[in-house]
Amino acid sequence: MPDRTGAAPRQRTRIKRVPDRGHYDAATIHAVLDAGYVCHVGFGDGDQPIVIPTAYWREGEHLYIHGSTKSRMMMTLAGGAPACVTVTLLDGLVLARSAFHHSMNYRSVVAFGRFEAVADEAKLAALEAFVERLTPGRWAEIRSPNKQEFKATMVLRMPLTEASAKIRRGPPKDDAEDMALHVWAGELPFAAGFLPPLPDPQQTADIPLPGYLRAATSR
Amino acid sequence: MPDRTGAAPRQRTRIKRVPDRGHYDAATIHAVLDAGYVCHVGFGDGDQPIVIPTAYWREGEHLYIHGSTKSRMMMTLAGGAPACVTVTLLDGLVLARSAFHHSMNYRSVVAFGRFEAVADEAKLAALEAFVERLTPGRWAEIRSPNKQEFKATMVLRMPLTEASAKIRRGPPKDDAEDMALHVWAGELPFAAGFLPPLPDPQQTADIPLPGYLRAATSR
Repeated sequence: MPDRTGAAPRQRTRIKRVPDRGHYDAATIHAVLDAGYVCHVGFGDGDQPIVIPTAYWREGEHLYIHGSTKSRMMMTLAGGAPACVTVTLLDGLVLARSAFHHSMNYRSVVAFGRFEAVADEAKLAALEAFVERLTPGRWAEIRSPNKQEFKATMVLRMPLTEASAKIRRGPPKDDAEDMALHVWAGELPFAAGFLPPLPDPQQTADIPLPGYLRAATSR
Repeated sequence: MPDRTGAAPRQRTRIKRVPDRGHYDAATIHAVLDAGYVCHVGFGDGDQPIVIPTAYWREGEHLYIHGSTKSRMMMTLAGGAPACVTVTLLDGLVLARSAFHHSMNYRSVVAFGRFEAVADEAKLAALEAFVERLTPGRWAEIRSPNKQEFKATMVLRMPLTEASAKIRRGPPKDDAEDMALHVWAGELPFAAGFLPPLPDPQQTADIPLPGYLRAATSR
């Protein structure tokens, strides 16, 4: 099973700073990825690293992205360039009694690897999985890609074999001698989510709000 | 004024995909940076790009980060390695009538450059600016870094001379021939913010909630 998530926590995947925040099991890595919507993809242009945000989704042991066949990033990645994909969810500020122990609560995943192009035969199913992940039931309602749109869209996937999660949660960890300081300490939680849908101003009035959008905003 | 933000939209800074979403003026770039809390820093380890999330703040024409003097990232960046810093704020899903025109609303900044170490004489003021940005008034209340903590903390800054913003907002842009399709179209807004503070369970009851935390959660 060379593709199993977290199967290969090699040297470069091992968390070095604050190692007790590191996780290498598939369940933890998948849970972080499945809670996010935007990843940051790192690739190189000569010795210049480039970091581009893009939508992603996970299916099994792979992380998927899509984009234009004309995109520099997509072309570079499709060519097998070494990549790093990072997903970060901010959960709060950690306010300690000392400046030094201030921190953030967060969940992140860093995955190293190379992307491969998803073949034409599997591309439509991959795009369907992407739409269904965000809005379950929507794929059947919308117009499918026509031949030209299909050709213009590239789907890439990277195996999650070299991935790690890093998570901090909970209150500050102050030094014992600071615990009596008269300063408020604790967490300032940070949360993100969907708000009620905004219909397109050009939409006709007879189209009801689909059930999956009612569900999305009550999460 | 070699340091003016957006002064040098060179070839690598120019937005290539959907160029009408690109912005190069300081006001737009600063506004995106000032609305975020976590950036993604790209640097290289040989031909392997590495993307690490970290807290950041902006002062004038520079983006600042801090970290341990033992961190690989901080050491690499302090050595003047080419870097790319990206900040992304997700504002919503854009649900079009066709699969192809689905999109996301977002604000992002990509900045290229090299970091430089902030000298010891300026380091404490920089850390103060960081804390004050998040929680105005808190620096005077907390214990300042002692000599050992001060030495263990590195502050780096990168000039924002090669930066661009990319912004998408508003409803979907469907093809004219799809406008009559009977499918809900519009935006599913996405928002992030602070929730009410959680006191440290070890905190004594006589410490009131500071005003800057009441303000933070009512933003």
